[in-house]
Amino acid sequence: MKHGARNDIPATVVAIKRGGVMAQVEAEIEGTRFRITSVMTLDSLNQLGIAEGDVVRVVAKAVNVLLVKP
Amino acid sequence: MKHGARNDIPATVVAIKRGGVMAQVEAEIEGTRFRITSVMTLDSLNQLGIAEGDVVRVVAKAVNVLLVKP
Amino acid sequence: MKHGARNDIPATVVAIKRGGVMAQVEAEIEGTRFRITSVMTLDSLNQLGIAEGDVVRVVAKAVNVLLVKP
Amino acid sequence: MKHGARNDIPATVVAIKRGGVMAQVEAEIEGTRFRITSVMTLDSLNQLGIAEGDVVRVVAKAVNVLLVKP
Amino acid sequence: MKHGARNDIPATVVAIKRGGVMAQVEAEIEGTRFRITSVMTLDSLNQLGIAEGDVVRVVAKAVNVLLVKP
Amino acid sequence: MKHGARNDIPATVVAIKRGGVMAQVEAEIEGTRFRITSVMTLDSLNQLGIAEGDVVRVVAKAVNVLLVKP
Repeated sequence: MKHGARNDIPATVVAIKRGGVMAQVEAEIEGTRFRITSVMTLDSLNQLGIAEGDVVRVVAKAVNVLLVKP
Repeated sequence: MKHGARNDIPATVVAIKRGGVMAQVEAEIEGTRFRITSVMTLDSLNQLGIAEGDVVRVVAKAVNVLLVKP
Repeated sequence: MKHGARNDIPATVVAIKRGGVMAQVEAEIEGTRFRITSVMTLDSLNQLGIAEGDVVRVVAKAVNVLLVKP
Repeated sequence: MKHGARNDIPATVVAIKRGGVMAQVEAEIEGTRFRITSVMTLDSLNQLGIAEGDVVRVVAKAVNVLLVKP
Repeated sequence: MKHGARNDIPATVVAIKRGGVMAQVEAEIEGTRFRITSVMTLDSLNQLGIAEGDVVRVVAKAVNVLLVKP
Repeated sequence: MKHGARNDIPATVVAIKRGGVMAQVEAEIEGTRFRITSVMTLDSLNQLGIAEGDVVRVVAKAVNVLLVKP
């Protein structure tokens, strides 16, 4: 499978939080202490079927990435 | 300065590409070989004033991050 | 601090609503009656540490702004 | 017509820039000097049929609005 | 009314789910079994005033559409 | 492969347009005349390696789908 997004980084799921409609998943980028958070619908989380400790890929379209200069 | 986005990761600019309206910046996440690409307007790139080698912070709202299970 | 987004407007926080995972913040654009709403994770809201009456800046990437012609 | 976005603000088109695939439109929020920029495809710009001086409505989903605390 | 988004498809609302801050609406694309889900704030849902069986138009900016090659 | 997006629809690529930084792909939803447009970086298009006539899957996060009531 290939996708049309520039950003695709391996990470390990470290926390999952469920709300009424939305859910939040935190994952730690491979080989680092950096964490990335993804918010999706609870339905998508259930369909994805992930649990803490699972390896996932973090995907984002480049247009939705903002750069900040310190 | 604080912002309302969950994702904020340090990276070094490794490539910049300019188009007529848009521009593309690639940055390497600190301590890794992972690259993240950001697309912004050319005007924003000029205003940001970044060059290859600069350290930036990569920011993304959690709602725009997609998880993929291999 | 500079960021790579074209849109950056001062506004005053007028309402905050908290859900299980997400939170919603309404702010009024400086010198107007126009309101802008931002949705973020509850974690981001807590980290941002804003309250009603605070002045914030409203930032949005140009690609996520839609124009409508009446 | 009604839409499911929280943000809908009147503005006047002040500048249009065309690229090969994308186009950029700047508009000034009614009663202010604040400018908002929208990026869309050139095809969408042509279909929208706007010119400088036109009044438009600026629409954005709340999830794509980021708050920054100075 | 015209808008600056490339994607605009008729669909019928088949399910609505309400959370504390967010709401989720599922709609079936006209003439198909394909379903599209939209997440918006509960406030936007109430303002939109839609119910199951209503015909809506599904709009998305092209930059937020990802293509996947099987 | 599974992903955390609610929207995933099969479509056939009908047109590709390349710019300096960005590219635009139009695809027709299976069994319909409805077209969906995706904008990505030229780099992503090349990596994806799609051509007219190819079957792809159109993916979008539910938060980026806007409903309009006629």
